[in-house]
Amino acid sequence: MSQIPYKTYLSENEMPTAWYNLRADMIKKPEPLLNPQTKKPVSEDELRPVFCDELVKQELDDTTAFFDIPGEVMDFYRMYRPAPLIRAYFLEKALGTPAHIYYKFEGNNTSGSHKLNSAIAQAYYAKKQGLKGVTTETGAGQWGTAVSMACSYFGLKSHVYMVKVSYEQKPFRREVMRTYGADVTPSPSNTTATGRKILEEFPGTNGSLGCAISEAVEAALTHEGYRYVLGSVLSQVVLHQSIIGLESQIALDKYGITPDIVIGCAGGGSNLGGLIAPFMRDKIQGKSNPQIIAVEPASCPSLTRGKFAYDFCDTGRICPLAKMYTLGSGFIPSASHAGGLRYHGMSAILSQLYDDHLMEARSVTQTEVFDAAVQFARIEGTLPAPESSHAIRVAIDEALKCKETGEAKNILFGLTGTGYFDLYAYQKYNDGLMSDYIPTDADLEKGFAGMPKF
Amino acid sequence: MSQIPYKTYLSENEMPTAWYNLRADMIKKPEPLLNPQTKKPVSEDELRPVFCDELVKQELDDTTAFFDIPGEVMDFYRMYRPAPLIRAYFLEKALGTPAHIYYKFEGNNTSGSHKLNSAIAQAYYAKKQGLKGVTTETGAGQWGTAVSMACSYFGLKSHVYMVKVSYEQKPFRREVMRTYGADVTPSPSNTTATGRKILEEFPGTNGSLGCAISEAVEAALTHEGYRYVLGSVLSQVVLHQSIIGLESQIALDKYGITPDIVIGCAGGGSNLGGLIAPFMRDKIQGKSNPQIIAVEPASCPSLTRGKFAYDFCDTGRICPLAKMYTLGSGFIPSASHAGGLRYHGMSAILSQLYDDHLMEARSVTQTEVFDAAVQFARIEGTLPAPESSHAIRVAIDEALKCKETGEAKNILFGLTGTGYFDLYAYQKYNDGLMSDYIPTDADLEKGFAGMPKF
Repeated sequence: MSQIPYKTYLSENEMPTAWYNLRADMIKKPEPLLNPQTKKPVSEDELRPVFCDELVKQELDDTTAFFDIPGEVMDFYRMYRPAPLIRAYFLEKALGTPAHIYYKFEGNNTSGSHKLNSAIAQAYYAKKQGLKGVTTETGAGQWGTAVSMACSYFGLKSHVYMVKVSYEQKPFRREVMRTYGADVTPSPSNTTATGRKILEEFPGTNGSLGCAISEAVEAALTHEGYRYVLGSVLSQVVLHQSIIGLESQIALDKYGITPDIVIGCAGGGSNLGGLIAPFMRDKIQGKSNPQIIAVEPASCPSLTRGKFAYDFCDTGRICPLAKMYTLGSGFIPSASHAGGLRYHGMSAILSQLYDDHLMEARSVTQTEVFDAAVQFARIEGTLPAPESSHAIRVAIDEALKCKETGEAKNILFGLTGTGYFDLYAYQKYNDGLMSDYIPTDADLEKGFAGMPKF
Repeated sequence: MSQIPYKTYLSENEMPTAWYNLRADMIKKPEPLLNPQTKKPVSEDELRPVFCDELVKQELDDTTAFFDIPGEVMDFYRMYRPAPLIRAYFLEKALGTPAHIYYKFEGNNTSGSHKLNSAIAQAYYAKKQGLKGVTTETGAGQWGTAVSMACSYFGLKSHVYMVKVSYEQKPFRREVMRTYGADVTPSPSNTTATGRKILEEFPGTNGSLGCAISEAVEAALTHEGYRYVLGSVLSQVVLHQSIIGLESQIALDKYGITPDIVIGCAGGGSNLGGLIAPFMRDKIQGKSNPQIIAVEPASCPSLTRGKFAYDFCDTGRICPLAKMYTLGSGFIPSASHAGGLRYHGMSAILSQLYDDHLMEARSVTQTEVFDAAVQFARIEGTLPAPESSHAIRVAIDEALKCKETGEAKNILFGLTGTGYFDLYAYQKYNDGLMSDYIPTDADLEKGFAGMPKF
């Protein structure tokens, strides 16, 4: 073993005490959210019926570089953070690479992923505002679990609209949420006008994330004392997730290490945006020049094959328009096992950075991803979530390139969560039944056709 | 927040480098294992066909106090250890107790429990001996997962006999094992003489742990290059699990804290034996006098209602006889959700300590346990395993006693694992459908009747 330990945990007084808002340092800032009716930038007033007041401010503020983490959120963070920065000695050895591989592991909490970092912040602001509770949607279930844990901690109610097919196929995810006191409703449901309309039109539907979002937003708007919370895409979420990158940088700084490559999986972009935030700042400011790589599924390739344009964020088209890389809100990704990466768009922050060539993107197929996941599990011990395994795939690929060139690059990737609730997917892989669906250009055109015209 | 952090992680160079063998310091040592035919103490030669040579030595050695942890096992430990010692500030506050509650959390690894501590040791000795692989049984699945991870790491084959009902009801546990390369066979199976015999007699049987043990032992005896590994009960396993207690004591020593109460759940006794080892040494040597409490399910009360006598360790009656607290190898516990605590007997080490009044025992019902589990999950964030929740129940009870008396006792308990794979049980609890079965005296008499006569 080298001097750098296998796992580095910051001490509690080394933990960051403020979130970092990357927008403050971006040369070209993300375009503003637009009101879908007026197509003018949304105001605080327009967002306040949906989001908590403080979160609205965070959402629209692209100049304040640091937001203090409230004391009660810090207390909660101390329950499961700091997350370890792990040196992948075993993986390096198995690959025979001169590269040094590090990963930030966010799975050591009951929600099983980084989602809790933002859920607790959003629940805190809801509590501070004197609200009764929050509504949200969940697909794979990680975000819904995180919200139910956060609300349980602050004594808030949580109402989770869970995509019907997941509600039925992932009963255990549902039970975790119920154990933390959440009301979980399969979506579409007859509890909202949106849900009733969809059920009428498509009686046998399995539901979709877009529909669940619309139901959750409607529920927040129509119930006194409730607001809606969202687990990705929004800039406020990227802000909260900066804790991932900040902790990673503090840990690496202990050893005088600057990463040459930073890799994260990208669905809505919250984990990736959080992981890269301080490294991107250094890149923008010319302090270092890391290669930054977003990894997305070939089945839902918003960065690599999408358009950079204003688009709807939800299927119901009630949320503000965002300028982002998108496949169109009507794009229906195939039933990939990385449910957390099946979003048609991408964080406006990351979209802008990608458009400005400050970040690269790669798309990978499901089988390639599970090859890497199983290899990683057997070598490094941890069973990774399918989403996280996208980053593993590219980290391994880059480490193997180093083996060819002999370069001892420092590679950092984000391991966002565990695969405990994704074993159906592993079963398909173990049985050799995994499929790789890649949308055709014609499939993509259908999605693009539904985008708003300007 | 006090000066003591919420979580204490030892640094890698503070980690213990030797396992502690409590037997070396016991005044009254556990009685020897007996050959079931001759009823004489078993020899190394008799055990070597079943267990690896080094493990046979560890099993029979009651005088060597410390065994160095081999370097390759230390490397693997560094992947997921040190396990955090957590100060339950949030729980203390919620209970309003002056007690200081600490817990050692062993769930931060993919097997989800402390079982990996011994699995990796046993796999290492199998590898060192040049074996092809190991056989074992698993009920709830935690031990089987740990063995498959450990064998995967050392490139060994693992063949796991999984109790049929678990194989069918816990397909995800099975998939984790397969992902780590294990062959998983539902037991009883037609791959062994024992299995075929049982299938013939009871064609529709759900299987049992006792039967799976017998099949796994037979498979080891009849396959060249294989040995059998066991996850609890044996003294070698208690030895390996001493890492739990040693780390806990080193962490507490940093703050000058000596626990007043040490609490652990008790099934076969490996976690409890490991947790208490150094504290019991201090108690035996008069350095401190902690109250030590074993918590067992009311449905399988080997300490509180069993007999201290020589008994069979397995249903097939092929393993050595052990002097232990036992309900009889024919005792069939009810289908409790704490599968890991459904063993008819108890580690010979713990049985002797209990008989010598160095340790107490409490039995608790399933509903009491899940009340504590859900309370803990909501307050401390981590969803506990049903087994671990037995210790939580008594820790809360003791903390509430402190509230009455005003005593600021230091309470340490073992949180052996997570409840991610036990959500069927949580569902029953959430739905108000949990049952509490307590065996009648007549039920116990049936078990006692099958014990060997001397």
